[in-house]
Amino acid sequence: MSLATYGDYAARTRESFARQPAMRAMGISIDDVAPGEVWLSMPFNPDFTQQHGFMHAGTIVSGLDTAAGFAAFTLMPEEAGVLTVELKTALMRPGKGQRFNFHARVVKPGRTILFTEAVAMAIDAGQEHEIARLSATMMAVEGRADIRG
Amino acid sequence: MSLATYGDYAARTRESFARQPAMRAMGISIDDVAPGEVWLSMPFNPDFTQQHGFMHAGTIVSGLDTAAGFAAFTLMPEEAGVLTVELKTALMRPGKGQRFNFHARVVKPGRTILFTEAVAMAIDAGQEHEIARLSATMMAVEGRADIRG
Amino acid sequence: MSLATYGDYAARTRESFARQPAMRAMGISIDDVAPGEVWLSMPFNPDFTQQHGFMHAGTIVSGLDTAAGFAAFTLMPEEAGVLTVELKTALMRPGKGQRFNFHARVVKPGRTILFTEAVAMAIDAGQEHEIARLSATMMAVEGRADIRG
Amino acid sequence: MSLATYGDYAARTRESFARQPAMRAMGISIDDVAPGEVWLSMPFNPDFTQQHGFMHAGTIVSGLDTAAGFAAFTLMPEEAGVLTVELKTALMRPGKGQRFNFHARVVKPGRTILFTEAVAMAIDAGQEHEIARLSATMMAVEGRADIRG
Repeated sequence: MSLATYGDYAARTRESFARQPAMRAMGISIDDVAPGEVWLSMPFNPDFTQQHGFMHAGTIVSGLDTAAGFAAFTLMPEEAGVLTVELKTALMRPGKGQRFNFHARVVKPGRTILFTEAVAMAIDAGQEHEIARLSATMMAVEGRADIRG
Repeated sequence: MSLATYGDYAARTRESFARQPAMRAMGISIDDVAPGEVWLSMPFNPDFTQQHGFMHAGTIVSGLDTAAGFAAFTLMPEEAGVLTVELKTALMRPGKGQRFNFHARVVKPGRTILFTEAVAMAIDAGQEHEIARLSATMMAVEGRADIRG
Repeated sequence: MSLATYGDYAARTRESFARQPAMRAMGISIDDVAPGEVWLSMPFNPDFTQQHGFMHAGTIVSGLDTAAGFAAFTLMPEEAGVLTVELKTALMRPGKGQRFNFHARVVKPGRTILFTEAVAMAIDAGQEHEIARLSATMMAVEGRADIRG
Repeated sequence: MSLATYGDYAARTRESFARQPAMRAMGISIDDVAPGEVWLSMPFNPDFTQQHGFMHAGTIVSGLDTAAGFAAFTLMPEEAGVLTVELKTALMRPGKGQRFNFHARVVKPGRTILFTEAVAMAIDAGQEHEIARLSATMMAVEGRADIRG
């Protein structure tokens, strides 16, 4: 699959990511960017745990959704923004570990609609476990062109 | 639909909710509890916005998922815990507003598997808009009985 | 919610439905149409059962998806067609019964993207049970304007 | 990932598949079986098309869901049956082609809950296109032990 990008897509992706206060609040950072792919990670953060002491499902979904949104963003024209239309997440194991990695990729690009998938891994005592998988529909918006409107 | 509860389910639900640091971090609080139903809300929180200044999709999903998980929890035996097996969220409008309400209910109870749905409303300049809808599968766990194991 | 329609949307919906061989093959018929809503039904059909003798999940999803697609179609301009972008179905009870009803409605209209939900009921020995619930994203296409392209 | 099977899982999977009238009706056959994996295929079938002459989304979902269910079934004990708890399907391209392949695999096994994914490919004029992707939760049932009950 040949994935076309526009201009310095990697710098644009990192800049847009940096403008998300929610990522700072949770301690999620961007590790790498490629055409149609993004890697994020976060250390275990006790402020975002649930009642059993594991990372909250909502935080795992936040990492997966953001990775997937920016994976789509890497393929969009310079003036475009990205919105999530819908997402599904399978939560396969508890969010237990010292570090969490989120890897997303575009499985079907498109001018307006992009299909994405992402995987969350927990690193727990040196072992890596797949804890969640996301499937999400992303949308490119330019100006006020929110096609959900 | 007659929904059986166990003991003081409402107090147990509020106590378990209070043990979720992630809810405190995002400023989400519990407003009301009924058999198979939970209402949460949060004020606009600039720390959890995305790059356009709206609430981050991950935060909206966190509120919806937590409401749905505790809606399921209201119907569980005293020693049980709740885990999300999977969730899907349709993001219909931007997370734009001064306040956000999350209302979840169990659409099909069960001993181990409970099907739930939830709706997120934004209150923006006095007007209420439905911004997202969740469908999620919840699981009751007792002791180490994680049936995903 | 005021839902605008175009021309004789009901006749157009019934005509488009009648051009789906898959509906004839499964014995699914259209019962009623309203702005943003469609009702379908089918009798128990032994040709579309699974290994336990109940209606196959795929057939239940076919009824739900088609109801939701045409619920979206009722709100589209005369020259538009409808495509499913994605769907999620919760299968809450076995597809056991003598008759199955599918009721879908648009939960958020839009020019290009429409969010829909649908419910499948089984009528079994005179009793009605909710067996499945769908959440789906529908897309309006005009000419070759497949925004997934 | 080491995936344990029970007895002659492959023969059991093929026998259970053969007892699904819905598969015969749509012309879907089983091509191959491995631990945690199943391959199905069907020729283009005009009886299961939608109004544009492409395979109906419901039929594509039927193939994906069945492949995923039996991929889970390959890992279950001899007396167990499989039920779909929920499924999500992303429909990325039209169901246009002369032949359709469905490949499913278990992404996280478990005694009661198994997480699965599947991909649908269309072969159109000698070219293979990915047209849909499924993420589904499967459940093992023994006797009357429907944990949705």
